[in-house]
Amino acid sequence: MPVLMELSRVLVSDLDDQQAMYLREVGGLRMFPILIGPFEAQAINRQLLEEEPFRPMTHQLLKNVIAALGGVIVEVMITEMKDHTYFAVLKVRTGETVHDVDCRPSDAIAMAVHYSPPLPIFVAEQVLNELG
Amino acid sequence: MPVLMELSRVLVSDLDDQQAMYLREVGGLRMFPILIGPFEAQAINRQLLEEEPFRPMTHQLLKNVIAALGGVIVEVMITEMKDHTYFAVLKVRTGETVHDVDCRPSDAIAMAVHYSPPLPIFVAEQVLNELG
Repeated sequence: MPVLMELSRVLVSDLDDQQAMYLREVGGLRMFPILIGPFEAQAINRQLLEEEPFRPMTHQLLKNVIAALGGVIVEVMITEMKDHTYFAVLKVRTGETVHDVDCRPSDAIAMAVHYSPPLPIFVAEQVLNELG
Repeated sequence: MPVLMELSRVLVSDLDDQQAMYLREVGGLRMFPILIGPFEAQAINRQLLEEEPFRPMTHQLLKNVIAALGGVIVEVMITEMKDHTYFAVLKVRTGETVHDVDCRPSDAIAMAVHYSPPLPIFVAEQVLNELG
C-alpha cells in the first residue's frame, strides 16, 4: 500500500548544488530526505513562500498546459529507489484514463505544491521499507 | 505575419545569472538576443549538445506529459515585448483545437529544441519592428 506523506521541509545550502527535501509520513513517524538540485529546490520553496513570480516558471507552465489539455494531476507517487536514485510518477487523468508519467521526485513534489491544497504525495511502502 | 526564426546561439556566462539566447531570421538578416536565466540556458544547451540526462529533466517531463495527454506542440511564438519583457506562447494541439499557452521565451525555446527536428520558432513581426 502506498503511504501518504507530506513535504516536511526543504534544506537549501548556498555552499553546494545539492539541496534536500524531507518527506514525512502523515499520521506517522517515518521521514526521509531526497537530494535535489538547486533549481528544483527554488521552485518548491517559491511555492511554499507563496511568492508569485511575475511570469510563469516552468512548473507553472506544466500545470497550465495540463489544464489547457483538459487533464488534471490526481496525485504524485515515489515508486521506487534503484541505485541510489528515486523514481516518481505524476498520475495525470484525462476522462476515465490515468496516465503514469515518469519523473524525478523533485519535479513530482514541485508539481504537488503548485496546487492549493497541495496534491497528495504517496511513497511506495517498499521504498520506505528499504530505508529501514 | 509572424517571422520564422531559429536559435542562433546561447551565451552562457559563469560570472552572473543572466545568460542570453540569440534568435536569427531564417533566410534573413534580423537577429536579436533575449536574456534568460541559468537553468533555462542549461536546459537549452543540454539539448543542443545532445546530452541525454539519466532522468527526465523538467522540459522533457513537459514533453512527455503532452504526449501522454494526446497533445502535440505545433510551434512556439514570441508574441510581444512589453516593459522590457518578452511574452511567448506554446501552441499545443489536441484534436482540432490549438491552445495558446502563455510562457516565457526561454521555456518556449527550450521546448522547441526538445523535439527533433526542433519545432518552428516564430516571432511576431511587430516585436521585430519594435527592435528597429
